[in-house]
Amino acid sequence: MSQGYAQGRTAILLVDPYNDFLAEGGKVWPRVEAVATEVGLLDNLRTVLAAGRQAGLKVFFVPHRRWEPGDYEGWDHLTASQRGVQSRQLFARGTWGGEFHPDFQPQQGEVVVKEHWAQSGFANTDLDFQLKQRGITQVIVIGLLANTCIESTARFAMELGYHVTLVRDATAAFQPEMMQAAHELNGPTFAHAILSTAELAGSLRDAS
Amino acid sequence: MSQGYAQGRTAILLVDPYNDFLAEGGKVWPRVEAVATEVGLLDNLRTVLAAGRQAGLKVFFVPHRRWEPGDYEGWDHLTASQRGVQSRQLFARGTWGGEFHPDFQPQQGEVVVKEHWAQSGFANTDLDFQLKQRGITQVIVIGLLANTCIESTARFAMELGYHVTLVRDATAAFQPEMMQAAHELNGPTFAHAILSTAELAGSLRDAS
Amino acid sequence: MSQGYAQGRTAILLVDPYNDFLAEGGKVWPRVEAVATEVGLLDNLRTVLAAGRQAGLKVFFVPHRRWEPGDYEGWDHLTASQRGVQSRQLFARGTWGGEFHPDFQPQQGEVVVKEHWAQSGFANTDLDFQLKQRGITQVIVIGLLANTCIESTARFAMELGYHVTLVRDATAAFQPEMMQAAHELNGPTFAHAILSTAELAGSLRDAS
Amino acid sequence: MSQGYAQGRTAILLVDPYNDFLAEGGKVWPRVEAVATEVGLLDNLRTVLAAGRQAGLKVFFVPHRRWEPGDYEGWDHLTASQRGVQSRQLFARGTWGGEFHPDFQPQQGEVVVKEHWAQSGFANTDLDFQLKQRGITQVIVIGLLANTCIESTARFAMELGYHVTLVRDATAAFQPEMMQAAHELNGPTFAHAILSTAELAGSLRDAS
Repeated sequence: MSQGYAQGRTAILLVDPYNDFLAEGGKVWPRVEAVATEVGLLDNLRTVLAAGRQAGLKVFFVPHRRWEPGDYEGWDHLTASQRGVQSRQLFARGTWGGEFHPDFQPQQGEVVVKEHWAQSGFANTDLDFQLKQRGITQVIVIGLLANTCIESTARFAMELGYHVTLVRDATAAFQPEMMQAAHELNGPTFAHAILSTAELAGSLRDAS
Repeated sequence: MSQGYAQGRTAILLVDPYNDFLAEGGKVWPRVEAVATEVGLLDNLRTVLAAGRQAGLKVFFVPHRRWEPGDYEGWDHLTASQRGVQSRQLFARGTWGGEFHPDFQPQQGEVVVKEHWAQSGFANTDLDFQLKQRGITQVIVIGLLANTCIESTARFAMELGYHVTLVRDATAAFQPEMMQAAHELNGPTFAHAILSTAELAGSLRDAS
Repeated sequence: MSQGYAQGRTAILLVDPYNDFLAEGGKVWPRVEAVATEVGLLDNLRTVLAAGRQAGLKVFFVPHRRWEPGDYEGWDHLTASQRGVQSRQLFARGTWGGEFHPDFQPQQGEVVVKEHWAQSGFANTDLDFQLKQRGITQVIVIGLLANTCIESTARFAMELGYHVTLVRDATAAFQPEMMQAAHELNGPTFAHAILSTAELAGSLRDAS
Repeated sequence: MSQGYAQGRTAILLVDPYNDFLAEGGKVWPRVEAVATEVGLLDNLRTVLAAGRQAGLKVFFVPHRRWEPGDYEGWDHLTASQRGVQSRQLFARGTWGGEFHPDFQPQQGEVVVKEHWAQSGFANTDLDFQLKQRGITQVIVIGLLANTCIESTARFAMELGYHVTLVRDATAAFQPEMMQAAHELNGPTFAHAILSTAELAGSLRDAS
């Protein structure tokens, strides 16, 4: 399906490109660094975005809830991930860690959707609506983390009827086993394509 | 079902209590004023909230998107209502018109959900999620407008499995015919109860 | 937007074309007959379908739950409409009333989506998914009833990001006031186009 | 949270208990057998259901689409799993493989929700609605497969606001690594509890 990434129908979903995840000094960077470095995460994110923009694809920013005081108050049940966000004030609103990494900033005409509370960028947000308003039927899901937000966003996208592409080296995780679970064990059951950055960039060049 | 409004299971959904809708000088107030005055809207909203809080019900604020520059850019198709919001900059973020009316402010522990782009407070927001995190199964839907945001929020609530109560004089519309459509023609087909403010306040007193 | 009904992007949603609604002898036909006759419902449904199929549009059948024994058991709260379905066994599975009218049968390649429990053809069904799997971004909603299933299906479609067309004489209701509410009071706030059958057929001829 | 499984608020979701998955001679049983035997799957499913029913919990059957001729026709993109279902006619309607295993049959008053097309029992079905109509806020997800339908159903349940329990030996997968991914790598990030059958049965006994 190298011809599949039609300009008007395909979007890149960039999930959680926060300094806390991607930058030296970010609160979660130390847990991500080993895998991110090994796969060449930051360069690959830059490559996918550049190739996508060059091919005329729309980029959607899909951000996790930026922590702020009062978050999670009155909830019956938090996940372990939400407890972690709360206790460490991850992606805190108004702080450097809660800003998008300088290399991953929305450009004119790109869309920043509503923040998600958990893992799926579609759940409790306007992502599906914003995609539909632009005629998008295919999504390329990149960013962090491979087995949590990327995987849930991709699982939801498939269930909502989208064609879903994962990019195995444009994401990262806390452990290599989580990457393997995402791309070898689980991804093949729900994603329609799982590519490397080089393969995707090649397809996008051919399409543009 | 006067016993139905159990404290831990029932929420009040207060939709779009903006100055632009409810206050002298608000941009939409002139179109709402005749019906609002006739039904006693502001006093009734105050009464429902007071009775609900007294009975221990949780209040959820369900706000329309506050207009800001760039809104609707790149959308394939806007509704007439969205064109109106855009051209008149309704509920503009950072302006008085986009603030909640002073008498309808969130209190400690009450929930402000994400802004909706169109009419239903459930669509593309975290309203369903926030209700579930608090064990809510019944909703009382009040605010503006009877035949647009209130009706769509109520129709969605029913389809999502909630027990739905409308309050015929704790809402308003541009024309009396729209009130009649909401409460005499359409509401009876999807709402589980349609009460007056006095009837609801009585039920809540009995329940508490 | 006469050029708007592109073949590969537009679908006709035909809601609840049951004998119980549309045929002499159907259980609900007596309540629909006056309005249906006045607007020319059956002929108009035939015209829209023929023009749509001629223009290469995909038709989706959007059926209400066919009543069967055990339905609604254990539910906390039914709507008045659901009580009516239950007490009168409307659209009962395996009966003539629960069959599609002979003039409104799925053709080869057309899609019959899952049955809906209430009013919206999108709620608790695979309609959105089936549309997405075929790249549909615009829907034309016809069938019954104008102010209940048609209106809720159309309200949901808009909130889900679709372009929505209503056809004012390819639907009916129990009372003329309900038609007026659907097309004069409410429809203009959420639908992107409200046409007559003749206008729509003209647009489809131009498009094909 | 041993006190958490309140009778009126908790449901067991039994996913895909088909002969094709669970019975000697089923089409997928050979791929599941090794893991299923090792964890004691069938006995554990029996134990969870018996303990749950004894404690008054409602059981919901959450079935995959039973294959029938014409399925997937006209779809733009199938997953690898759907291609497998199609080519092998898994869970075919009207065949033994598409029947629930004899030990896992709905009892009077239990709910069979609509069939899902992919992995999540919530996507494109009435599962959320049927749970809400019964006041359920906590779900225990058991059945097959651990890393596909169970995991997606559980991820969706969490995003929809439910409290989610996984039972590590009341499910199975094609490979032990998939079980480990589901319960050691991924589950802890989205599930609120991950128990053994013995632990869950103990909690349910205490609660009843």
